[in-house]
Amino acid sequence: MDRKIKQRLKSVIMAGGSGTRFWPKSRRLFPKQFLKILSDKSMLQMTIERLLPLTPMDDIYIVGNRNHKALFTQQVPACHDHRLVLEPMGKNTAACIATIAFLIARDDPENVLFILPADHWITNPGKFRETLRLAAAAAFEEDAIVTLGIPPTFPATGYGYIKVPAESVKGDNGDDPPVHRVEAFVEKPDLERAKAYLASGNFFWNSGIFVTKASVILEEIERFLPELHDPLKTLANIGLEDIDGFLEKIYPTLPSISVDYGVMEKTDRAMMIEADFGWSDVGSWDALYDLSPKDADANVAEGLVLLENCRGCLVSSHGRLVAGVGLEDMVVIDSADATLILPRGRSQDVRRIVARLEEKGMKDLL
Amino acid sequence: MDRKIKQRLKSVIMAGGSGTRFWPKSRRLFPKQFLKILSDKSMLQMTIERLLPLTPMDDIYIVGNRNHKALFTQQVPACHDHRLVLEPMGKNTAACIATIAFLIARDDPENVLFILPADHWITNPGKFRETLRLAAAAAFEEDAIVTLGIPPTFPATGYGYIKVPAESVKGDNGDDPPVHRVEAFVEKPDLERAKAYLASGNFFWNSGIFVTKASVILEEIERFLPELHDPLKTLANIGLEDIDGFLEKIYPTLPSISVDYGVMEKTDRAMMIEADFGWSDVGSWDALYDLSPKDADANVAEGLVLLENCRGCLVSSHGRLVAGVGLEDMVVIDSADATLILPRGRSQDVRRIVARLEEKGMKDLL
Repeated sequence: MDRKIKQRLKSVIMAGGSGTRFWPKSRRLFPKQFLKILSDKSMLQMTIERLLPLTPMDDIYIVGNRNHKALFTQQVPACHDHRLVLEPMGKNTAACIATIAFLIARDDPENVLFILPADHWITNPGKFRETLRLAAAAAFEEDAIVTLGIPPTFPATGYGYIKVPAESVKGDNGDDPPVHRVEAFVEKPDLERAKAYLASGNFFWNSGIFVTKASVILEEIERFLPELHDPLKTLANIGLEDIDGFLEKIYPTLPSISVDYGVMEKTDRAMMIEADFGWSDVGSWDALYDLSPKDADANVAEGLVLLENCRGCLVSSHGRLVAGVGLEDMVVIDSADATLILPRGRSQDVRRIVARLEEKGMKDLL
Repeated sequence: MDRKIKQRLKSVIMAGGSGTRFWPKSRRLFPKQFLKILSDKSMLQMTIERLLPLTPMDDIYIVGNRNHKALFTQQVPACHDHRLVLEPMGKNTAACIATIAFLIARDDPENVLFILPADHWITNPGKFRETLRLAAAAAFEEDAIVTLGIPPTFPATGYGYIKVPAESVKGDNGDDPPVHRVEAFVEKPDLERAKAYLASGNFFWNSGIFVTKASVILEEIERFLPELHDPLKTLANIGLEDIDGFLEKIYPTLPSISVDYGVMEKTDRAMMIEADFGWSDVGSWDALYDLSPKDADANVAEGLVLLENCRGCLVSSHGRLVAGVGLEDMVVIDSADATLILPRGRSQDVRRIVARLEEKGMKDLL
């Protein structure tokens, strides 16, 4: 890899999420990126570990939520000071990316950012890094925003899709994953459309991972989201010690919008690299079951679990015994103060429980 | 009721059980009779309350296990001294009944004993007491051991049966429940036989409730179980303060045998009264579900429980939240240190979990 690119690589980990899909293990004050899922390290720690051969710790930035400060300190003690940016509140990905891009551009606007969520699963980290390297080269040479597109393996309705020109994917495949011009970003489809996308061969899952020069993404934010760009541009030359106070003041006024919707669907500088390294956003207990190694009865058991005549179950205990008899295709998740039980395939409905807890004002359990 | 009978009535509650069918709520050191099931009183407390209009507290005896002494003191502070007999170990019902019969016969061998388990459910306590009164009169007048036979409502394979002469049940029914000579005690049948018993009309469920003079049951124990009678007969004239020490010494040597098998199947003094007051031995989580009032979705929820799209479930929480989504006909029982999940209809398999815990030496959870 070109030296002038290599020295400009920066990783940006978006770790501000507070999702509810892993309730009752994930909580507002302890969201999924801090959970040890499929590993004895947290998803955030695994994300960092995966990036270290590409960007040493000093080139890794984390954008998180102020409420989780203690968790960052505990899990990532080596990331501190200006490389850990704590938002006073979540304002979706566009604000997060604009903020960190302004800060990193202070050193060099030509710095190339790997922008990625803190809570994804990657099966083949070597191939993942190789894909990021190629994306960085394309982003640098072409002044493009290169997204990582996952070749779909089933007609998923839970992901957005990226459409690339049909003729573009029909060429010879070399060893390197091909880079395409993006024709369109497509919102989460219904099953019918998802099946058509899968069959077409030129639709890819939107992984939410972007590679771009700081200057390029800032130009596009300026163009399509001036209401975000203008208030934040002060970050370009504010004193480091004043950043927290500035964000505290400015964040409540920012629009809450995703970078996909606010920028990627509109820009003509989007490209996509085919990203075939085994990927999951581990978006539900079902996804976790699918990713986990299983025993002879297709069960996944974690912690103090006793199963009698059970098949196809995900059972996780937390310091207490969970005993199942005659269960088929069930999910049982135990935490210190709550236990969740549901059939596999229903784990999207976890949010209904969370909504009920909100309705009832049971904040301790959120 | 005849005054000479009335003043001789004594209740004997057999409360030494340590069953596992209500695991994880019931434990060796906290068995079912101490649980608050279907009530804010324990099954033992409800059993006593049900008997008080028949036998005041001073005429109620409890036979229990020494390990549960603190629980008896806590739950039944009014039963103490010689009316609470604590066995050093469980030796089945024959030893339990022989011991208490010897002690009660010291005052008057003609005393009439209501001998009953501490953990049964009775729907109509008034009718229950009326049946016991009639049984007492029959037992007193005829020197019989009168058992309470429950008219079967389905072909149960979990109960023993009592056979009475077919011609005996065909007579005119007055207001009082009829008393029959017993033809045979029959062990738990298979489903085929249970169906035949149900159809016959002259087979009744063995409730495990007996009414007998102290002298009569002791005579029959002497006749059929001399190996139990001989070691225990010292109780007839031992000092009250020496009873505990005596039982401690003698119990390990006693045969462990049920009064049904050891006496009732052999004696010619057995009679049966039809007992139609709504009865269950609450022998499993399934039985508890059947007895419990249900909500509009046929769910039974106890404690902090959230159910979304669930039907026909028994869910019990214990200070923590139990949340279910899309469950049908499931049982979820939460306790401080263990959670049990199984489909309804499988609750007899709870013992398999308990057996596994024993195998693994996980005594804390037994």
